[in-house]
Amino acid sequence: MEYKITVMKNAFYAQSGGVTSVINCSAYGVISKFKKDFSDSNIYASKNGIVGLLEGELYDLSKTKKPFENLLEMPGGIFGSCRYKLPDLDDESFYKKLFDQLDKLLIGYFFYNGGNDSADTCLKVSKAAEKYGYDLKAVAVPKTIDNDLAVTDNCPGFGSVAKYVAISAKEASLDVKSMCKTSTKVFVLEVMGRHAGWIAAAGELANNAKQTFVHKILLPEVSFDEDKFLNGVEKDVGEHGYSVIVASEGLKNENGELYASSTETDSFGHNQLGGLAPKIASLITEKLGLKNHWSVADYLQRSARHISSLTDIEQAVAVGKAAVKLAAEGKSGVMPVIKRISDSPYEWSISEGDLNEIANEEKTLPKHFISSDGFGITKAGRDYLQPLIEGESFPKFYNGIPIYEGLDLHLRKI
Amino acid sequence: MEYKITVMKNAFYAQSGGVTSVINCSAYGVISKFKKDFSDSNIYASKNGIVGLLEGELYDLSKTKKPFENLLEMPGGIFGSCRYKLPDLDDESFYKKLFDQLDKLLIGYFFYNGGNDSADTCLKVSKAAEKYGYDLKAVAVPKTIDNDLAVTDNCPGFGSVAKYVAISAKEASLDVKSMCKTSTKVFVLEVMGRHAGWIAAAGELANNAKQTFVHKILLPEVSFDEDKFLNGVEKDVGEHGYSVIVASEGLKNENGELYASSTETDSFGHNQLGGLAPKIASLITEKLGLKNHWSVADYLQRSARHISSLTDIEQAVAVGKAAVKLAAEGKSGVMPVIKRISDSPYEWSISEGDLNEIANEEKTLPKHFISSDGFGITKAGRDYLQPLIEGESFPKFYNGIPIYEGLDLHLRKI
Repeated sequence: MEYKITVMKNAFYAQSGGVTSVINCSAYGVISKFKKDFSDSNIYASKNGIVGLLEGELYDLSKTKKPFENLLEMPGGIFGSCRYKLPDLDDESFYKKLFDQLDKLLIGYFFYNGGNDSADTCLKVSKAAEKYGYDLKAVAVPKTIDNDLAVTDNCPGFGSVAKYVAISAKEASLDVKSMCKTSTKVFVLEVMGRHAGWIAAAGELANNAKQTFVHKILLPEVSFDEDKFLNGVEKDVGEHGYSVIVASEGLKNENGELYASSTETDSFGHNQLGGLAPKIASLITEKLGLKNHWSVADYLQRSARHISSLTDIEQAVAVGKAAVKLAAEGKSGVMPVIKRISDSPYEWSISEGDLNEIANEEKTLPKHFISSDGFGITKAGRDYLQPLIEGESFPKFYNGIPIYEGLDLHLRKI
Repeated sequence: MEYKITVMKNAFYAQSGGVTSVINCSAYGVISKFKKDFSDSNIYASKNGIVGLLEGELYDLSKTKKPFENLLEMPGGIFGSCRYKLPDLDDESFYKKLFDQLDKLLIGYFFYNGGNDSADTCLKVSKAAEKYGYDLKAVAVPKTIDNDLAVTDNCPGFGSVAKYVAISAKEASLDVKSMCKTSTKVFVLEVMGRHAGWIAAAGELANNAKQTFVHKILLPEVSFDEDKFLNGVEKDVGEHGYSVIVASEGLKNENGELYASSTETDSFGHNQLGGLAPKIASLITEKLGLKNHWSVADYLQRSARHISSLTDIEQAVAVGKAAVKLAAEGKSGVMPVIKRISDSPYEWSISEGDLNEIANEEKTLPKHFISSDGFGITKAGRDYLQPLIEGESFPKFYNGIPIYEGLDLHLRKI
């Protein structure tokens, strides 16, 4: 292959995987830093992740009139995201197509904003560029609400969902407490986290030294013991009058199978469409006869920009900027990672991670963060989680709701 | 019966029914106004609604040290609520017990903060007082997220849940929009409202003249037509790439039965524990084969003080104060109601409602608020809803979450 790449290199930015309330803050970090440091170059944002590049649909950001600062107040992925697995490196025709597309726009910097799978994509692109002789610096930008990326101390996107869970659990707990005398005695909040319990663990942050708002946390890391759980809930209700449970969707039974993907079938004979919370609620109704309510936060938790953590926003911007710096230094196949210097006062810095150690890896909750009974979070876990939810940065409101104005986007087809 | 009631009368305040994020604001209205206008008297708050009075457990608010202003930033019902139906007026022994209890604390003013059922309680107490010769002014204070109380233009508690729904739907919609190219194409948000669709209707407030964030609203007032709905969703996905649905838990089939309380049974042979959202999601999966996500907001929506409407807070305080004024004027069996003067600019005032017209009545969404296809809200509906969600009043935060400090409460057993 021959590529016409020149000294004047442009940049490519894309969002990938499940979005967060602050992924657009990382976009802001990449875009603002690139525009500042490479003022003669242009940056293109791919429509719907890598898919836009392959289909020849990109946004020409040089044409955008609205301020990029709008990205700091906008949940979801403004350019569109995707779930798409790249083929093996030896698929020459695929990568030839990919580099041809990049070459059309003189792209020498490739920024891919996502989680484990996206780190895999970025690593493949970096290796393929080397293999097929395309001059490209491919840098991943970390993002995932799951907080399960290796190497980095935490992941942008997680702090905000943790804050959402802690606030929601505290608020719902005050509600149940009011009702428990004659009505609802148990409340179950289902949160995300199919393999790692970081998000559910954040329920602990609702509690403080004086008061317990969340009584039980159900983690994928601890196999679910129905009897022990039910005994615990009964004890909570006896002691406090009510019990509040934050449960991870990824809760598993003793065989390591998802507890929620039950053998129950719906009227069509298909497996019942999930929902861990209704299953736990059903269990409590059947076995304890306690009136309960349940909630499934689902996308609400990861899109709640109105209550994002300021720490999270700052880190999301910082990793975006750091990615540009790494690329400018000639690095490829790397990702900026967050390094914790101290818990309290919270201090952190950005360093460099190797994508070979990050791609497809998954970091679960360490054992010493889980209390001995398996239903709570230790002080060590709490000390880790606490700083990540700190600080508020409310968006601008109009007519009673956040504006989320976004950008004017100008499609360029190639 | 002989009662020792004197000129110096004390007050009784209780919270009843499902709580809201601003019911404590009404408590603040009652307490602050009573303490100001009746500075020689005392006010007692019943623990867990009328149940506390019957069981002889009340909080003596003269002993509370923390500022009552804390009530303005505290979701749930701080004194505890109850679901409890009073017997008929001719149950002399019951009412004798009730008035004996009130008499022990020299109570001459009875403030009952709740919805339809609570208005019934307050009306019965007012009539019984007359019947059994106890000198009491019983005034209801309106509260309900359902917005279904008769006579009043709207109900404190509703504006905040409407704001929560509009914000959450807008945020989740931005998430789905990001994902729809290669993943989730439909999102269903289930909200409360068993008989009236006011809360689901608030999903419309996510939309604006330029952009549609919520594509379908499912109301209890419109019998659910599966085919028409599925066709609509398919059309949304064709046009926009995705579809966002806000659905009321009270959605009904053509026979007027709850659509969610299906005939499906769980592994115990019992009816599947509800959840309209998973049922709608299941329908979409089966019939359209579109990947979807769903959320059930449940208690999160009605306890989300972090995002309460300022208009709602102001009205909640105002009805509390107005209740004291009505009682001071010697009124009984009444409730302060909100009267709308104009939509835009929004102007309102407080007037007096007769509990005979309010107790046990239910106000559903009027026909002219529902669009002709049954899946949307008209301009008239939008004009009605819009002012109720306006204004923000964020609570104080500490360690990344709202403080919700509450009050020190001192139990007095009688």
